[in-house]
Amino acid sequence: MSHTTTTFFLDLINLLGIFAFAISGAMRGVRSQMDIFGIVVLGVVTAVSGGILRDLLIGATPPEAIANWHIMALAVLVGVGVFFFHHLFDHLRHPVLLFDAAGLGVFAATGAQKALTFGLSPVMAAVLGMISGIGGGMVRDILTAQIPVVLRAEIYASAALLGAAITLVGDFLHLPSIESTLAGASLTFILRMMALYRHWSLPRPR
Amino acid sequence: MSHTTTTFFLDLINLLGIFAFAISGAMRGVRSQMDIFGIVVLGVVTAVSGGILRDLLIGATPPEAIANWHIMALAVLVGVGVFFFHHLFDHLRHPVLLFDAAGLGVFAATGAQKALTFGLSPVMAAVLGMISGIGGGMVRDILTAQIPVVLRAEIYASAALLGAAITLVGDFLHLPSIESTLAGASLTFILRMMALYRHWSLPRPR
Amino acid sequence: MSHTTTTFFLDLINLLGIFAFAISGAMRGVRSQMDIFGIVVLGVVTAVSGGILRDLLIGATPPEAIANWHIMALAVLVGVGVFFFHHLFDHLRHPVLLFDAAGLGVFAATGAQKALTFGLSPVMAAVLGMISGIGGGMVRDILTAQIPVVLRAEIYASAALLGAAITLVGDFLHLPSIESTLAGASLTFILRMMALYRHWSLPRPR
Repeated sequence: MSHTTTTFFLDLINLLGIFAFAISGAMRGVRSQMDIFGIVVLGVVTAVSGGILRDLLIGATPPEAIANWHIMALAVLVGVGVFFFHHLFDHLRHPVLLFDAAGLGVFAATGAQKALTFGLSPVMAAVLGMISGIGGGMVRDILTAQIPVVLRAEIYASAALLGAAITLVGDFLHLPSIESTLAGASLTFILRMMALYRHWSLPRPR
Repeated sequence: MSHTTTTFFLDLINLLGIFAFAISGAMRGVRSQMDIFGIVVLGVVTAVSGGILRDLLIGATPPEAIANWHIMALAVLVGVGVFFFHHLFDHLRHPVLLFDAAGLGVFAATGAQKALTFGLSPVMAAVLGMISGIGGGMVRDILTAQIPVVLRAEIYASAALLGAAITLVGDFLHLPSIESTLAGASLTFILRMMALYRHWSLPRPR
Repeated sequence: MSHTTTTFFLDLINLLGIFAFAISGAMRGVRSQMDIFGIVVLGVVTAVSGGILRDLLIGATPPEAIANWHIMALAVLVGVGVFFFHHLFDHLRHPVLLFDAAGLGVFAATGAQKALTFGLSPVMAAVLGMISGIGGGMVRDILTAQIPVVLRAEIYASAALLGAAITLVGDFLHLPSIESTLAGASLTFILRMMALYRHWSLPRPR
């Protein structure tokens, strides 16, 4: 596949993450009976915080979501859409958590790759991938005065870290970038959803 | 008006924003029965967070409030003043919200202009103005374990965004910088106060 | 003492701060009945947030805790250790607060010195020292939905500010770096512990 096509697909995957987190944030706004602007703001903040945190930490300023208007524009559109059509998600058991898991996977994978290109060591790149993934949901939960899901949850940050690591392994094996990204993102998503529906959990202190 | 006079007036307007947010933060500390240091810290954090967030996002490091001591010094003085003279505000119906609205307007206008000079596109500069305006109150509310007013409220971030946009429109029409700033800041302030006292609100999901 | 030995001791002191804050964060996770990953994440976040905040504010990107993996590795190890051996701290009256006070002192002292080497004025360097000290506990408290100890507490940020100032005074008197650091860190720690056990407090508004 040509370089341009690869870039296009990776951009598309990244927009998918923005899309998923914007839905998760906006749905939380709907559940909290916010007005349309609050819903949109919460959607946008959830969508961009992980990436902004990542970019600030690796020194990529201004962050991508600030330098290009199209990321925020997409998140705003999604927020407005959720305001009008939120009943479409009513039949889903955990709409916030489902879309949160999708965003978690995408950002863990793409975040790890971006950190690597900014010169971080593989271990720290995986950690940065995890941070990209968990940042949005963390800010969403803090803003709505809840203990972040990352701290309460069954497998969550651990799924993001594993997905980020798998993506990097793929890159080191010279797999096509898209394949590594999809592998890491899917692994995180599947692990997280399994944990949610099967009530998998990690050990707790006695 | 000479360039020096313009700079002087803009600095003055900015200090007004610091002043207003420091009062709003310190008053929240008084209401939460904090001690004098807690009150001062909350005043300072509320006053500087919006600008620091803006500067980190546009890559202006170290942020203005860190590079120059006089911003923090003013916020500290205001915090100490509020500790001793907070009863002066007792007859105001919503002292925290009144000063919050003033800070919101000033920072939305000056934040948008600063973002523009750092090369952001007009649309993103308006968004950065909004972020500068809402950042301080957001951190104040998070620190005192409340859902941020920006998410709960009648017209708030929307007023900041509109004021930021009007300021930029003024700049593009080559109005004197002070006039654009005052127009944008006043618009935000008036919209916010009207929303507060007239209970204006945006639509909520059914 | 040779330059290398000095650097070694300062690194050691800094790791002591990481160690102390990681215990304080992880213990909070244990108290909140989190699982092992939540405990480790909370320990790591508490340990690195103050330093990362300091580095972002003084423009030292990527922050030390991101550029070098050994800081996070230590925090992870401590978090895992706390998960398995948290009962060792059961006889301590306030384990979270005891280790928090140690981290507060160390980071206030070393943070002030780092800010000075990045060209900040002495006053702002002391403020940055305070921020380095209080940042970790602040993020820990926000993440567990508590009003930060820095705002509720008896002498806390004030102890950090004083310790940071003393460290800088030592540096200006050309004391060996280690001695200034230890003096500032100890002063903060002792003030904070005295305030805790003697119930010292600052005045509150009437």
